[in-house]
Amino acid sequence: MKTAPLKGTRDYLPKEVRIRDYLQNTILNAYQDAGFSRITTPIIEDAVNLDKSDGGENLNLIFKILKRGKKLDRVLEMDSISENDLCDMGLRYDLTLPLSRYYANNRNSLMTPFKVIQMDRVYRAENPQKGRLREFMQCDIDIIGDSSMNAEVELILTTAKALKLIGIEQFTVKINDRRILADIFKYCGFPEESNERLAIIFDKMDKIGLEGVNAELKEAEFSSEAISSFIKLFSDETLTIEQVAKVCDNTYIQNLQYIMDTVNALSDGSFPIVFAPSLVRGQGYYTGTIFEVEALGYNGACAGGGRYDNLIGKFLKEDIPAVGFSIGFERIFGILMEKNEPIPNQKQKIALFYNQEDYINALKKAEELRNSYMVSLFFRPKKLGKFLNRIEEADFDGYMVYGEEDGIKIFQS
Amino acid sequence: MKTAPLKGTRDYLPKEVRIRDYLQNTILNAYQDAGFSRITTPIIEDAVNLDKSDGGENLNLIFKILKRGKKLDRVLEMDSISENDLCDMGLRYDLTLPLSRYYANNRNSLMTPFKVIQMDRVYRAENPQKGRLREFMQCDIDIIGDSSMNAEVELILTTAKALKLIGIEQFTVKINDRRILADIFKYCGFPEESNERLAIIFDKMDKIGLEGVNAELKEAEFSSEAISSFIKLFSDETLTIEQVAKVCDNTYIQNLQYIMDTVNALSDGSFPIVFAPSLVRGQGYYTGTIFEVEALGYNGACAGGGRYDNLIGKFLKEDIPAVGFSIGFERIFGILMEKNEPIPNQKQKIALFYNQEDYINALKKAEELRNSYMVSLFFRPKKLGKFLNRIEEADFDGYMVYGEEDGIKIFQS
Repeated sequence: MKTAPLKGTRDYLPKEVRIRDYLQNTILNAYQDAGFSRITTPIIEDAVNLDKSDGGENLNLIFKILKRGKKLDRVLEMDSISENDLCDMGLRYDLTLPLSRYYANNRNSLMTPFKVIQMDRVYRAENPQKGRLREFMQCDIDIIGDSSMNAEVELILTTAKALKLIGIEQFTVKINDRRILADIFKYCGFPEESNERLAIIFDKMDKIGLEGVNAELKEAEFSSEAISSFIKLFSDETLTIEQVAKVCDNTYIQNLQYIMDTVNALSDGSFPIVFAPSLVRGQGYYTGTIFEVEALGYNGACAGGGRYDNLIGKFLKEDIPAVGFSIGFERIFGILMEKNEPIPNQKQKIALFYNQEDYINALKKAEELRNSYMVSLFFRPKKLGKFLNRIEEADFDGYMVYGEEDGIKIFQS
Repeated sequence: MKTAPLKGTRDYLPKEVRIRDYLQNTILNAYQDAGFSRITTPIIEDAVNLDKSDGGENLNLIFKILKRGKKLDRVLEMDSISENDLCDMGLRYDLTLPLSRYYANNRNSLMTPFKVIQMDRVYRAENPQKGRLREFMQCDIDIIGDSSMNAEVELILTTAKALKLIGIEQFTVKINDRRILADIFKYCGFPEESNERLAIIFDKMDKIGLEGVNAELKEAEFSSEAISSFIKLFSDETLTIEQVAKVCDNTYIQNLQYIMDTVNALSDGSFPIVFAPSLVRGQGYYTGTIFEVEALGYNGACAGGGRYDNLIGKFLKEDIPAVGFSIGFERIFGILMEKNEPIPNQKQKIALFYNQEDYINALKKAEELRNSYMVSLFFRPKKLGKFLNRIEEADFDGYMVYGEEDGIKIFQS
């Protein structure tokens, strides 16, 4: 038997789970206060839904579930077997695809617009050697059925509030529109059918810089005129919304301006929201606005999202506007674990030591104390001092020995 | 694309999730107050661990995950392919196996005894045509490293308290010991190596009655003397602990008596705890005490557990005593959904309607109100009355129209 968890998955210790639960509850409360409703969907999805979902590179990272019983026997008898023959389900790689299916399935029982929370686990067969998790938590809010930019405004304000409540104080919201990107590509002279390939290359800008993008565009054999026009545009590091406005449809610019103005009116400048013409976001299903949060001291984005007006249409016969924002929970958890700050507003946790002959009375005493404390009973160990060190490390706040006069002693830290 | 969730899995609506979250939080708080610490383990486990885990019939219900990339290619090139060749992981079928692996993996960072909470999803490829869920929630507490019967006492008291807090008022705790069963089988003259087969048959007593058990024992061709001795013993419907004591090791009886006396001293008779000589519990890994909760109005058990002193030894070189108690969350959720009682101690949820020209001020007003209410903003619909019906159904408690004098209106129900 193997004692370690599978590569890319983690066992969480009690101390870690207390922090994870605190963070999740704080985020959930912020979302609920803002009028969003929580739903849950299954972790397993039909293989067909996953395969046809426009998930971009994530489609190569799906954990697939083997067929069972006679269904499997029939496949194993075939002369030539492919991966798809063997599987009928898979683990979801994000929460947006299941949400789209959910909305299509439950539409008649839901409000329009539907303001929805999902906080749950997703799975990707990432390379664990690069330190990537294969099982991780996402915290998403989405608004379905609202084509107005007010949906974006509320997602941004609500996400910003949640981040502040969990201790992420300094951050910038970056915003762009996939259609602005498409207009820029067109303006530079790239062929329209290359938009997705172009986006994938341009998305690497943060890692490989503009020169790297230039090299990859050349390698992909795009016309040199288009490439130089594109590189020229983005070599201006202070490329403004006014400059971009000259080369793209003005509605998109007005949308972004409305979002930024409204968010600014509410945030009182407590966080900046800026136009970021080089923002791409990886998912294939985004159709309009895209945004992410960059926080001080974090490498890469700690939240991201965008509008995906065509995804629900894959399940229904009509398109439904939709937009979502997802907090990268695991990254934030990692940083806050390092900070090691106490969890606010929790009952203190104490150990109550007893001798066997006092057990019933100690149980009664514990039950009394539980109105004010979390109380864990322990048989009094021979070496109490050594044991006290262990419980302090294990995040107990204090202890009491049943029958001794001096009551509860809280550790000084 | 398929809009329905996979058979045996469920989409939960906002109303349902509010109740599920409330129940889970209430149970979690009861567990934590009693000094248990929450951990989490991955939903995916190594296939080897699952296959060798003594999970009884659950081993036939494991969802297995297909190998990926080159590992899969190599298998597909083989002349003859078996199920096990194709898979390297699976979805856990309970929380006890992952806990045993977790304890072996993290032992040096954990307290002894380790009082632990797990509340999470498990997966079984049950037949969905029988209405069985394939993805469901379990709420477990376990005590690892305590061989004394105090561990059983605390599990029973804590589970009973959690059940009362979520509204299960009238229930009986039934208790037995696997070793008493084994002694009874031996006393009746069955061969020792048949214990597991005997337990599987006897476990059906609730469904098929003593006559059904008699028939199945005959069908399995056990000696007719042993069968008639066994049936005679259990045809006494008031079979007492004293009578059973005559045919089994007395230590087991004393253990049960200690557990019952101590629990009774603490429960003040608020629930009965009774010796149940026909209690079996299905899992193959139980080694000693077993127990379950039968609640008024529930068919079958709504919580169950027992001692599994050998399971952790499969991961470590030494055996570690362990005992656990699991609440059958889904069954309880089903019953409480039908009762349809309001959730205590929650902020009320209101809709705030706005016209576009007031949007920024309405956002500010909503932010103020969020100290006391959950506030969801809606663009003022043309037919407000009809919309109000919908939000009341969707579990809003009231509404307010921005700019109108009369403030918040709470629905009367």
